[in-house]
Amino acid sequence: MKLYDCQMAPNPRRARIFIAEKGLGIPNVEVSIIDGANLKPEYLAINPWGTLPALQLEDGTVIAEAPCIFRYLETLHPEPNLLGRDAIETARIGAWERFAEMNGMGAIGEFFRNQFEPLADRALPGYAGVKTLPALVERGRQRAAWFYQQLEGRLAEVEYLAGDRYSAADITALCAVDFGKAVGLGIPEGCAQVARWHGLVSARPATQV
Amino acid sequence: MKLYDCQMAPNPRRARIFIAEKGLGIPNVEVSIIDGANLKPEYLAINPWGTLPALQLEDGTVIAEAPCIFRYLETLHPEPNLLGRDAIETARIGAWERFAEMNGMGAIGEFFRNQFEPLADRALPGYAGVKTLPALVERGRQRAAWFYQQLEGRLAEVEYLAGDRYSAADITALCAVDFGKAVGLGIPEGCAQVARWHGLVSARPATQV
Repeated sequence: MKLYDCQMAPNPRRARIFIAEKGLGIPNVEVSIIDGANLKPEYLAINPWGTLPALQLEDGTVIAEAPCIFRYLETLHPEPNLLGRDAIETARIGAWERFAEMNGMGAIGEFFRNQFEPLADRALPGYAGVKTLPALVERGRQRAAWFYQQLEGRLAEVEYLAGDRYSAADITALCAVDFGKAVGLGIPEGCAQVARWHGLVSARPATQV
Repeated sequence: MKLYDCQMAPNPRRARIFIAEKGLGIPNVEVSIIDGANLKPEYLAINPWGTLPALQLEDGTVIAEAPCIFRYLETLHPEPNLLGRDAIETARIGAWERFAEMNGMGAIGEFFRNQFEPLADRALPGYAGVKTLPALVERGRQRAAWFYQQLEGRLAEVEYLAGDRYSAADITALCAVDFGKAVGLGIPEGCAQVARWHGLVSARPATQV
């Protein structure tokens, strides 16, 4: 098994943390998004969508998309459980994991990609030829503010994003927040609960990847 | 159990078809997105993200997000199987279901919402105050062309989107394509395989909802 990865990018980090939490040693193959290696024929032959991460099995089968990699690895390696122990918990973790992806990753990615010169014709992950739009920088900022506000409200009620224990929802939210910190949309002033949760989750050895 | 639904919108239709395929009779509660009912306090008390569909259980628990509703219902009602019978098939269906959502729904929604006057300050699902951007109409069209091209290539190789049998991936792709047809981004000329698959899937009684 190997993980097609990009060390600098927030989405592959979701898979790296998940793998580390499971205690699995899966070798990484670096595919540089900045260099456009993810849109070159060599990588498109592996994952035609050009996105990272992707997990390749021994028989050559490729599993794309972070949540699909999560589900596959959890089925093979059920412990520690990160996706839910029953139908209700699975739904709750899944919904918060998607929330972090759509609203956190989505917002911060929009803010960042639309002003980052090396990605000028790659404003969306996996696509060639999508031009940046300056107005989306501001839209991304607006959406990220909403994301942090929702996160703060949620974390005032619960210790971890999906409830009383750590889960895949925390992994994706952490990757979004750390991406935000790196590109100028870090935890806003006054988001004490987000800061509290960020310290808690960041203290886990598996998140240091 | 009840489904918060919006008859006109493509995402709630994913849940309606899934429920119909399972042979479940779950009553619907209409929440009009056009009227902004999804962003009013009554609905935000049910789903603070303002998105549809959402499934409410007898004890009041709410499950948001179509793929989380899928997973919950499949766990309770495993047959007919729509999400995969083993880890590999689940990963393949999951990845194609996401492909249809991100690239199909995402593209066509971007094309539509950014030119549809009643949603002028609601360019993204579930958010108030996000202004439309005319440049995103063209970007949505460009992304939809890529979506159809990928779909055509895939359906030249397999009968259904995730392989040799019908699955949740077909449900989401059908909802995206029918949404496209309704808003001026129907199946392009020359996409014979998409047209073939569309006829096959549309013939299922459960998709007539």
